[in-house]
Amino acid sequence: MKQFFSVADVEDLPSIVAEALELKSNPFGYEHLGRRKTLGLVFLNPSLRTRLSTQKAAINLGMDVMVMNMDKDGWALETKDGVAMAGSTVEHIREAAAVMGRYCDILGMRSFPKLQDREEDYSEDLFKKFMRYCGVPVVSLESATRHPLQSLTDLVTIREHWQGVSKPKVVLAWAPHVKALPQAVPNSFSEWMCRAQAEGLVDFTIAHPQGYELAEEFTNGAAITHSLDEALTGADFVYVKNWSSYSDYGKILPVTAPWMIDNSVLGTTNGAKVMHCLPVRRDVELASEVLDGPQALVIEEAANRVWAAQAVLKRMLEQLTHNV
Amino acid sequence: MKQFFSVADVEDLPSIVAEALELKSNPFGYEHLGRRKTLGLVFLNPSLRTRLSTQKAAINLGMDVMVMNMDKDGWALETKDGVAMAGSTVEHIREAAAVMGRYCDILGMRSFPKLQDREEDYSEDLFKKFMRYCGVPVVSLESATRHPLQSLTDLVTIREHWQGVSKPKVVLAWAPHVKALPQAVPNSFSEWMCRAQAEGLVDFTIAHPQGYELAEEFTNGAAITHSLDEALTGADFVYVKNWSSYSDYGKILPVTAPWMIDNSVLGTTNGAKVMHCLPVRRDVELASEVLDGPQALVIEEAANRVWAAQAVLKRMLEQLTHNV
Amino acid sequence: MKQFFSVADVEDLPSIVAEALELKSNPFGYEHLGRRKTLGLVFLNPSLRTRLSTQKAAINLGMDVMVMNMDKDGWALETKDGVAMAGSTVEHIREAAAVMGRYCDILGMRSFPKLQDREEDYSEDLFKKFMRYCGVPVVSLESATRHPLQSLTDLVTIREHWQGVSKPKVVLAWAPHVKALPQAVPNSFSEWMCRAQAEGLVDFTIAHPQGYELAEEFTNGAAITHSLDEALTGADFVYVKNWSSYSDYGKILPVTAPWMIDNSVLGTTNGAKVMHCLPVRRDVELASEVLDGPQALVIEEAANRVWAAQAVLKRMLEQLTHNV
Repeated sequence: MKQFFSVADVEDLPSIVAEALELKSNPFGYEHLGRRKTLGLVFLNPSLRTRLSTQKAAINLGMDVMVMNMDKDGWALETKDGVAMAGSTVEHIREAAAVMGRYCDILGMRSFPKLQDREEDYSEDLFKKFMRYCGVPVVSLESATRHPLQSLTDLVTIREHWQGVSKPKVVLAWAPHVKALPQAVPNSFSEWMCRAQAEGLVDFTIAHPQGYELAEEFTNGAAITHSLDEALTGADFVYVKNWSSYSDYGKILPVTAPWMIDNSVLGTTNGAKVMHCLPVRRDVELASEVLDGPQALVIEEAANRVWAAQAVLKRMLEQLTHNV
Repeated sequence: MKQFFSVADVEDLPSIVAEALELKSNPFGYEHLGRRKTLGLVFLNPSLRTRLSTQKAAINLGMDVMVMNMDKDGWALETKDGVAMAGSTVEHIREAAAVMGRYCDILGMRSFPKLQDREEDYSEDLFKKFMRYCGVPVVSLESATRHPLQSLTDLVTIREHWQGVSKPKVVLAWAPHVKALPQAVPNSFSEWMCRAQAEGLVDFTIAHPQGYELAEEFTNGAAITHSLDEALTGADFVYVKNWSSYSDYGKILPVTAPWMIDNSVLGTTNGAKVMHCLPVRRDVELASEVLDGPQALVIEEAANRVWAAQAVLKRMLEQLTHNV
Repeated sequence: MKQFFSVADVEDLPSIVAEALELKSNPFGYEHLGRRKTLGLVFLNPSLRTRLSTQKAAINLGMDVMVMNMDKDGWALETKDGVAMAGSTVEHIREAAAVMGRYCDILGMRSFPKLQDREEDYSEDLFKKFMRYCGVPVVSLESATRHPLQSLTDLVTIREHWQGVSKPKVVLAWAPHVKALPQAVPNSFSEWMCRAQAEGLVDFTIAHPQGYELAEEFTNGAAITHSLDEALTGADFVYVKNWSSYSDYGKILPVTAPWMIDNSVLGTTNGAKVMHCLPVRRDVELASEVLDGPQALVIEEAANRVWAAQAVLKRMLEQLTHNV
């Protein structure tokens, strides 16, 4: 695996899920793989779970890890070509990426969208240039439009907690928030669930208010409804997440119906497990009674971030070793 | 040892002191203990000595360390239950603690008091919830009301430097400062020295101006005086520290008499060794002539932070191993 | 090697260059040397290349690394003696250095000049006190007036890429910038190249506009010209770098002639390789067509930072081991 940027970078979905679960039962079984290999984690934006779980995954594989918080170091990167850098950017992504690729065997990067210019954000210009110029395998720690380590984790968690014989009904449910958030997590979750649905692993439904449609490239095959009740009926997993509007880009649109999930609206589900990528705003996005109740899976889900990251890093290390 | 939050978490004071000194003479004797174990250090406030000494202690024990500066990452934590999180806090301590506990075998946390609301600070609500929800052993890297790694270090340093046959006279002496500082260090030092006094290890006196009384729960058994001269007479160890008022909470009260210790006022001591937890404001809290003179013990004291932390982490690791 | 602050700390220039290149071909050949040794990297200013390359060098040698970003932690250090610390500085360099020296076997520190007071900056007071009080070997990660790890890297890179039989002509060429930058990199490069010239390894020329003269202590023996064309004629290596004025200290002076190097002005060189310490402002300091063309050596140069740092750390570790 040379890059982990979207679900398209995974050839065989069930096997990487199985690999993550095998690593969970045997965390240190491959610590020889990462010997004398260094992972560089570059954060242009804050991170808690992604930072710690990816670092832990690398440690489990025997790697050394160097963390670089570039937002804090005032190190603004230029991405545009052909412009004189006489402004606030101090280094071009071409140099920054190439140099970091010479110090590290694998790189991870996080870069949020600015939510100002949809075309710019969705071009993934920064991330694509980073992957192009660094010369080593790159794992996305969340880009402007996707969060694949989270989505792999989510699929692993669903697989781990599904005992049924038929396919589980998985619902992505929009939730309220006080801030305008990126679409990266729901885009990515939807992209992965549509792929899982196409491979016969889940049935996938998205519920959101009007105006919150995700970009079509991420939702091919999903059932989409504006009725939360309709979506929840018979659901086995409910994935709660806020996002800002894609059509009215980066905006919070007025919503009249209640969209925060509490125990009462879960009644029509099939005893659904409730997921969230965290951090979660209690009693804004999701009721405390759900988070503190038996249907919540959010801590288990966050814990699984380690095994998803470890499966990805393991595949990258295997390829590095193979190339040597 | 499941938590190290106050002196009450230590069953046998002399034995943990002896353990720290044994580790000082044999730093790498237990590096197998921490193999494949990860320490997470969470800082909600800045740290120099605590961060480096605890990290070094963990390295000596063979652990991997992940450091998280959450103050810098704009990751404000909510502690109150039952409130809708529609404000500036982005994550509840319930989730944050539980998740970090899934990535780490032992956690350390630093959280200063805000010095606005005494009841809130002294409730130690944040710290107690962190310990309750994270599910793994927690070492305090300084909480609102205590700094136990510092206090253990101080006791180790006194033991190491006391050659007398009788008990040493230990004095905690209030000192001036330009900023309003927490009571955590003096509370904790007093708590530990009162315990040491009760076990027959030291004689303990506190000297401070009127209005600077510490909370009684920390000073049981201590001799308390408002006369610096009286306290210093015959002293073997003088522990210099500023703190803001507890009764007029968080305030700097006007003080008329001179309280900064210089060589002249040390004349009535028993050639006392002078201690300070650092950082120290030279010639405000403590005279340069003392810090640069033969009676100062502050660098040795700071160096001992490693062995105190290592003793605590060693006990936690032994318990983890025992549980497996 | 007890300190690495300037070229004067290197006894034998060719042998440390050879050592760096040997480490490049055998990165892990000395990883036993750093076992149970800790490197502390203290940054009072931001760093990308220096931080990552030095950390990687230490990892290759088997060391543990602790990174401390003190600029971010609001930990302002006092350097003056004999003043009451009643202002914004929270700790004196005497204590801070001494304490860090007790936690680490080797220390690195970065401290930029303030560019306000030339005498203060050029006294290197902070750095010299840090080396004096910490009690362990210190490697400069860039001080107010020098950047020796960069300069050693530059000499290594020139040596690596020079196939000629005679000495290469090396040119340090001033370049425009939008910000006032320190003289540390050009001072240091000049200091190292003058030494290399004195040892018969290179011919060294400096080209800069009037008013941009470097301090004489760094340029002894260099040919100095105000004509970029004259300097470039027959050049084998062109080292591009901006700096602010030393005589009109810290100022950007008006410059009329074009000083940004592009492909057209490289025509009179001997197919010169173009170097830059990075980060570089594209099309302000140096034309994109050069950076993206076959004569640019900047990424190779940055990559070599690892081996320069590793050679220095290796020598320090050998001395530590020898002392034991």
